[in-house]
Amino acid sequence: MSRGGLFLVVMAGGSGTRFWPKSTSKKPKQLLSFGTTGTPTLLQQTLSRFDGLVPAENRMIVTTGSLSPAVAGQAPGVRILAEPQGRNTAPCVYWAAREVQMLDPDGIMLVMPSDHYIPDIEKFQATVRAAAGWAAQNGDLVALGVKPSRPETGYGYLRTIAASGPVGARKVETFVEKPDLARAEEYVKSGRYLWNGGMFIWRASVILEAFDRFMPELGKAWSAAGGDAQKAYPSMTATSIDYGVMEKAANAVTFELDCGWDDLGSWIALENMADVLGARREGGVVTGGELLAIQSGGNIVDAPGRLVAILGLSNLVVVEHGGAILVTRKDKAQDIKLVVDKIRQARPELV
Amino acid sequence: MSRGGLFLVVMAGGSGTRFWPKSTSKKPKQLLSFGTTGTPTLLQQTLSRFDGLVPAENRMIVTTGSLSPAVAGQAPGVRILAEPQGRNTAPCVYWAAREVQMLDPDGIMLVMPSDHYIPDIEKFQATVRAAAGWAAQNGDLVALGVKPSRPETGYGYLRTIAASGPVGARKVETFVEKPDLARAEEYVKSGRYLWNGGMFIWRASVILEAFDRFMPELGKAWSAAGGDAQKAYPSMTATSIDYGVMEKAANAVTFELDCGWDDLGSWIALENMADVLGARREGGVVTGGELLAIQSGGNIVDAPGRLVAILGLSNLVVVEHGGAILVTRKDKAQDIKLVVDKIRQARPELV
Repeated sequence: MSRGGLFLVVMAGGSGTRFWPKSTSKKPKQLLSFGTTGTPTLLQQTLSRFDGLVPAENRMIVTTGSLSPAVAGQAPGVRILAEPQGRNTAPCVYWAAREVQMLDPDGIMLVMPSDHYIPDIEKFQATVRAAAGWAAQNGDLVALGVKPSRPETGYGYLRTIAASGPVGARKVETFVEKPDLARAEEYVKSGRYLWNGGMFIWRASVILEAFDRFMPELGKAWSAAGGDAQKAYPSMTATSIDYGVMEKAANAVTFELDCGWDDLGSWIALENMADVLGARREGGVVTGGELLAIQSGGNIVDAPGRLVAILGLSNLVVVEHGGAILVTRKDKAQDIKLVVDKIRQARPELV
Repeated sequence: MSRGGLFLVVMAGGSGTRFWPKSTSKKPKQLLSFGTTGTPTLLQQTLSRFDGLVPAENRMIVTTGSLSPAVAGQAPGVRILAEPQGRNTAPCVYWAAREVQMLDPDGIMLVMPSDHYIPDIEKFQATVRAAAGWAAQNGDLVALGVKPSRPETGYGYLRTIAASGPVGARKVETFVEKPDLARAEEYVKSGRYLWNGGMFIWRASVILEAFDRFMPELGKAWSAAGGDAQKAYPSMTATSIDYGVMEKAANAVTFELDCGWDDLGSWIALENMADVLGARREGGVVTGGELLAIQSGGNIVDAPGRLVAILGLSNLVVVEHGGAILVTRKDKAQDIKLVVDKIRQARPELV
């Protein structure tokens, strides 16, 4: 086997409930399909996005033990690293890097979230190829940076040294937290900022060196457990790879990604994706069931097998799944957590 | 058999869709139950309201042929007059009067809608007894008049000669159509007006005389068909007993009814009835399923077996039944017809 191959590491441990009641802890966003019947789930789309780029035997999915049967069902034959518990992305990347290095000491890791949406696969693959080549040759840590299409306040940003344009690798000056709207508008206008899409590309050996430098406790926990992730995990720091490593590393660069990426962060995101999902209907965006909107518009509806009639109300989110119905306003979609927290106490089986 | 007995005539032909999607043409309001599990349907409540007053063999239900199996299922053993088609209340009363007169030439008919709600049965029976006694002795046409509890614009009114009080029979001066709010407030203030509850009490022979006088075409159609309702119906005038007879009769009187009556005319009516239905919950009125209301209040919810979460929206009507979900505002509940009309074309099986 030739050295320096590409390895796909899909992070699929998320248990977000921002799409409740469609998403639940047993069936989080990455295991769901958004769009017309037969649309693959976000996890399945994540995998097939690398067809022709990463061979099946070089793919692995990191997820929590409780989700791994469902994940395996959607990704038959793909190696699964089942975490004993979710500990954010740093330990997950550490474990995967160890696995890749065992398989190929010069292996290049493509670390990808499992719940994002990317319509233009060709452009995506071209950028990934270029970034992987750069990471292999230069030993940099690449964070893919999404070209911002709007002053989004829900994402983190990468500030780069280049003023604009997809000019290969651009040095990341700093990782920026979610900004307020004024700042986000400034960012987009400046051309120096890209969205941090949480997608990373690097040589396994390079990220492991970075871990040793910035989070040495991970390597110590790993060694103490004799390289057994199940034993090591409980004493590994639960922090993000962004915060634990990337923000501190001097060799962080970015490649600009311009492929219609969206992280589907809440029901509202479906509006941005409506056309590519084929979900635009009279009266709103419908990703499940039918909508009849009278004296009403701008609604988001997901209620498979149901007819939803909305009369005299606009900009609603109406969702029906598994015995639960959610009715809220689009501008409240970020607060679904309030609902989920209440239900978790009263009716845990519904979240 | 002694003559001059009481006969209950329940009118159960309505196919209203004001409670869609809970009510449908196959299961209209009178066949539905509102309230906690095990609550009898409105039709069943209508019948049991006469227990101790009208013996089983003196009860009959007039309904349309298509509904009669469902009606029979809810009222086993009760005689059913199955109309070949709905033709408003005048032909229905005519047929029932003919039936009663055959059974008892001096029989007193208690003509009652099947889809109203009456919590205080004792008071109701007392008023019915008094009115029936009056009708038997004086040969008047009695319309029960409900003491108004609010300036309701959804009901017709009876203007009486008496200024106020339940002083036995009060002459009805005129039948008044649904008023606007200013007029309704005036009516309630005056004390001379009662709601027209559509409940009538009279001797069968007296109403038949009135028919002969004010709607002679009914008797002619009846005779021409040899007393066969199925044959007579198509040529009987489809009009209401109010308009066809009562408004014209000189012997129309009323007895004041003060028993918490409500006609459950729309989802909003459930708010008036919430306490007697035991349906008041945190966040609104719930006649089916569970409600979780956050930053929300004043909702009306009917979704059996479902948890309905409402976030950041108030005064909604949210209903789920048989594969359809309705989301509207309370102040639009009168317009559900707009929804039903649309669905009748596109998805007739849902209405």
